[in-house]
Amino acid sequence: MANINPQYETIAKQFVDFYYQTFDADRAKLIDLYRPESMLTFESSSVQGAQAIVEKLSSLPFQKVAHKVGTLDSQPNPTGGAIILVTGQLLVDEEQNPMNYTQTFQLFPDDKGSFFIYNDVFKLVYG
Amino acid sequence: MANINPQYETIAKQFVDFYYQTFDADRAKLIDLYRPESMLTFESSSVQGAQAIVEKLSSLPFQKVAHKVGTLDSQPNPTGGAIILVTGQLLVDEEQNPMNYTQTFQLFPDDKGSFFIYNDVFKLVYG
Repeated sequence: MANINPQYETIAKQFVDFYYQTFDADRAKLIDLYRPESMLTFESSSVQGAQAIVEKLSSLPFQKVAHKVGTLDSQPNPTGGAIILVTGQLLVDEEQNPMNYTQTFQLFPDDKGSFFIYNDVFKLVYG
Repeated sequence: MANINPQYETIAKQFVDFYYQTFDADRAKLIDLYRPESMLTFESSSVQGAQAIVEKLSSLPFQKVAHKVGTLDSQPNPTGGAIILVTGQLLVDEEQNPMNYTQTFQLFPDDKGSFFIYNDVFKLVYG
């Protein structure tokens, strides 16, 4: 039985704001958004589990990063969560030229009335 | 209880090949890949249901289209299906300059041992 969350757009926007703010400020703190079953595919390299995901993100070879979301589209999934497609640009360290990226997230509700990331796929876009 | 399909990568690749071959040959035939609950968000415009989705795709203002998949990443979802992130390029009609796009699909199994598209989000990427 499908459970469509009528607030999916609001949830998606709040999540995306929070995710990139946290990523750009202190990406180790993203651990709270993942669970043991969560998956991250970052530039076609995959890891599973909150700990492994945050280790992967923390090991990326830049000190400073700034994400700028260009577009955000979301749809509900049948679990009461949402699927999100972001396109945007990011700047790392002292680099002046932004890189285009796309990222998709699938959020599932947890048992505390919040949401966690089940699927996370990130890809740079070369034009 | 999660149902992870160990064949998710093969399913994702076969699906993506079939989807764009069908889209580029006769996009009205994509109707078999959608169900009444399926959602399409195409350039931030959303429709629901196989019939409405195919009408939307068929109404796009080009006669010829060729998709070229650049990257395909997939992860399993807990229903036995998969989530897919594609980046690629497309050429329409006599246009010589390809457009970059990104598209995410969520596939769910049907009761016949096949898969249908539950979520479909398409977005052009401007660099």
